Amino acid sequence: MNTHPLYLLLIIILLSQFSHATTEIEQWDFYEWSHSGPSKGNPYRDVTIQATFRLGENEFTVSGFYDGEGIYRCRFMPNVIGNWHYEISSNVDTLNGHSGTFTCVAPEPGNEGGVSVANQFHFEYTSGKPYFCFGTTAYAWQHQSAELREQTLVTFEKYGFNKVRMCVFPKRFAPYITNEPEHYPYMGEAPDQWDFSRFNPAFFRHLERSILELQKIGVEADLILFHPYDESHWGFDHMSLEEDIFYLEYLIARLASFRNVWWSLANEWDLVKTKNVEDWNTLIETVDRLDIYDRLISIHNAGKIYDHSHPSITHLSLQRHNPKTTPSWHEQYGKPVVFDEMSYEGNLGYNYGDLTGELMTMRFWICITQAGYGTHGEMYQHPENILYWSKGGVTHGSSPARIRFLREIVESTFTEGPMRYPTEPWWNRKNCVSQEEEAFLFYYEDYQPSFRPIRLPEGNSYTIDVIDTWEMTINRLPGLYSGSIEVPLPGKPYIAVRAMKAN
Amino acid sequence: MNTHPLYLLLIIILLSQFSHATTEIEQWDFYEWSHSGPSKGNPYRDVTIQATFRLGENEFTVSGFYDGEGIYRCRFMPNVIGNWHYEISSNVDTLNGHSGTFTCVAPEPGNEGGVSVANQFHFEYTSGKPYFCFGTTAYAWQHQSAELREQTLVTFEKYGFNKVRMCVFPKRFAPYITNEPEHYPYMGEAPDQWDFSRFNPAFFRHLERSILELQKIGVEADLILFHPYDESHWGFDHMSLEEDIFYLEYLIARLASFRNVWWSLANEWDLVKTKNVEDWNTLIETVDRLDIYDRLISIHNAGKIYDHSHPSITHLSLQRHNPKTTPSWHEQYGKPVVFDEMSYEGNLGYNYGDLTGELMTMRFWICITQAGYGTHGEMYQHPENILYWSKGGVTHGSSPARIRFLREIVESTFTEGPMRYPTEPWWNRKNCVSQEEEAFLFYYEDYQPSFRPIRLPEGNSYTIDVIDTWEMTINRLPGLYSGSIEVPLPGKPYIAVRAMKAN
Repeated sequence: MNTHPLYLLLIIILLSQFSHATTEIEQWDFYEWSHSGPSKGNPYRDVTIQATFRLGENEFTVSGFYDGEGIYRCRFMPNVIGNWHYEISSNVDTLNGHSGTFTCVAPEPGNEGGVSVANQFHFEYTSGKPYFCFGTTAYAWQHQSAELREQTLVTFEKYGFNKVRMCVFPKRFAPYITNEPEHYPYMGEAPDQWDFSRFNPAFFRHLERSILELQKIGVEADLILFHPYDESHWGFDHMSLEEDIFYLEYLIARLASFRNVWWSLANEWDLVKTKNVEDWNTLIETVDRLDIYDRLISIHNAGKIYDHSHPSITHLSLQRHNPKTTPSWHEQYGKPVVFDEMSYEGNLGYNYGDLTGELMTMRFWICITQAGYGTHGEMYQHPENILYWSKGGVTHGSSPARIRFLREIVESTFTEGPMRYPTEPWWNRKNCVSQEEEAFLFYYEDYQPSFRPIRLPEGNSYTIDVIDTWEMTINRLPGLYSGSIEVPLPGKPYIAVRAMKAN
Repeated sequence: MNTHPLYLLLIIILLSQFSHATTEIEQWDFYEWSHSGPSKGNPYRDVTIQATFRLGENEFTVSGFYDGEGIYRCRFMPNVIGNWHYEISSNVDTLNGHSGTFTCVAPEPGNEGGVSVANQFHFEYTSGKPYFCFGTTAYAWQHQSAELREQTLVTFEKYGFNKVRMCVFPKRFAPYITNEPEHYPYMGEAPDQWDFSRFNPAFFRHLERSILELQKIGVEADLILFHPYDESHWGFDHMSLEEDIFYLEYLIARLASFRNVWWSLANEWDLVKTKNVEDWNTLIETVDRLDIYDRLISIHNAGKIYDHSHPSITHLSLQRHNPKTTPSWHEQYGKPVVFDEMSYEGNLGYNYGDLTGELMTMRFWICITQAGYGTHGEMYQHPENILYWSKGGVTHGSSPARIRFLREIVESTFTEGPMRYPTEPWWNRKNCVSQEEEAFLFYYEDYQPSFRPIRLPEGNSYTIDVIDTWEMTINRLPGLYSGSIEVPLPGKPYIAVRAMKAN
């Protein structure tokens, strides 16, 4: 039988329609609808497009966005398994009135959904799995060369960092980072002639690829929406409030459906001289209003800590050198505390990039044993100014391996729920967290005790591990213990003790 | 010529009279008048004796004391060179009405007088020589064996400690110190049957010998008058207020004329459960009233810091782990700050005796570069419980040699006057002290910068020394410097920088 070529084409089209009709999307992945539309005028400003997604009583309306070259897209992250129906509305006829369905299926292993606040001071994935935050800092990693980006991802995975603080806008901070990014967020001419009403889709597609690369290796993108590191070079730090909001609308339309996105309104908000608290509140509320997924929202300080009683702020993203203050922040704001800058490992000459590996590691352990979380960063001098803290790449310090070791301990110790600090006896309260009566983790910083008294609940039996947090060894003591005991220790710094209830 | 034996005796007596008449006492040493008197009844309670000393317009009246075996003494420290006249008054005829003279001569080298507050936050000897306080802690050293006491004095001298915190009363703190002293302060029967109206002169003579041994090697005796470490064994911590005052009267009559005595009302006053703030104020005011020499007066806390606005308190004798708080204490009370316990070097299991040598040394450097002062102590476990912190003896730690090194640096750097923290620029203010424009000392703790910006006054030229405070080396950079500079550093912890004005 002879087949006419047009007949074959018809079959292909039909098959593709069929395939479209039965698109399967994992729960917490995103579905993307796209369609061609007008490319004349200013589609970013002139075209509005929304999509409403329904499954039973679940109904969500999201804004779409113009992705350049005449293409419009609407993205949606389904939270419920089943068949979703959608309808498109637009002020443009060619986009308006489309409808369709897709099927949300169970997530594959490794997809636990997004991260949100749980048990007041902690985080968990939508699946219910606890998320223990072990962040790192590489502010402009995605604006660097492909080779460096590849190194960065390898580093994140190697050391088990599960969050990275990264800026949407490129970063300048002479002399350590002055290079131009591959893409700019706006149409116009570098360095500072921009049309703030027209975005550059290539910039955002690149950002999205980076975020999805992070997602693949289990890293949350703590996206910094505004920052002061512009040095009057590009001008992205002094757009008008309307331009800021226009940018947020576009960014959130593109990115809110990415399950590993967190919104960090600013790095060092108090150093951004062009915005006041009223502006920041407006921007925080804008993000909260536009993001239908209630992703995490924070605002990071330099000196002055933002008023975290704002109901849209989900957790504290602090710059402070002393994580022992965690309990007082817990008490003041009732929200999780992440020390997103507690100084960085490195050898720079300022008082924020000269921690030894020992100090960086110790601050992480203090965070954890105060029921808070820490974030890593590194600023070793480099002949080509490739400082990990901004550009990513490989790390040169000694803390990352120890931070990974800590993460392994935390995740294997507190399997059932949140870390809490015990309320009594008082000596347990000093750098100790517990998970009910199941597990206790004590940490003795850079002191060198040859023993320590601890008190475990009576009536249970516990195994005792003496942990050398620097040498990364775990030594289980013989026998089982309960009540008030003195744990023999090696009399050197950086020792922790773990007690776990025996079965 | 034959000489009759009685004639010879007469000559001897006359010579001894002559020698008595021309007794020479160094300025700031003490003159002691003594005479026999009644030994029956209770001379401590029943006999009053005073001596009034005069030289020109200088007139001082001091109380004498009963020294047992029928001997009464009056002691007086002359502050003016010349011929002093004295008169004795007493309610006992055999003591009343005596008079005489002595000559106060210039002090010998090594005798600089007592220590008092100078330049608001600092100390100096009466001679005007600055006294930079580098204290240590050996609470009950004088109650130990002669061999151990000898070791203790050698240790003090070896490491240049120029103050020791020591308790008048013996100390019990099981399991680390439980031995009985050689002497008890009261007549009666050990351990707890005492006549609080009768002192034991042997106890006080032993204490005086110990204080004079300290004086000989340049150590101030920071005498702790009351303390809570009695464990209901002797009962010296719960005498009545009248008995406390009776004890102070006797002690001060004996000891106030010793130029190296400081009065520390208490160690851990807030742990003494038998006295309230009103009692303490009464005792502070008693000491201030009885001591005509205005010696230093302090009261040391455990947790709660005493209200140091009391005008009789001369300086803060703090227990606090973080000496970076010095400027706020300066601001609050306007008095010198001595961190008399900032935890101790050692390996004990509590959170006050497990500092590494590095941490103990670092806290000293932080004190100094905050224009405050620190005190050393050591609590390494010992098979015979000879812990230096209470019993003295030899030290086992690594901080004492570094503390001596720091003292040498301070004394050779700030030769002209007090240490002040610069008020600008801000980065100089972090752990930096200066002596006007003459000298600057910066300290970078356990950070590891490979350089640091500092700003020196324009128009002067300075030498720059890079000091490794752990290795105890001083490396002078080539050339002279002024204004804003970046000092190259070795990129390791425990580095200090000294700038001294070139001639």
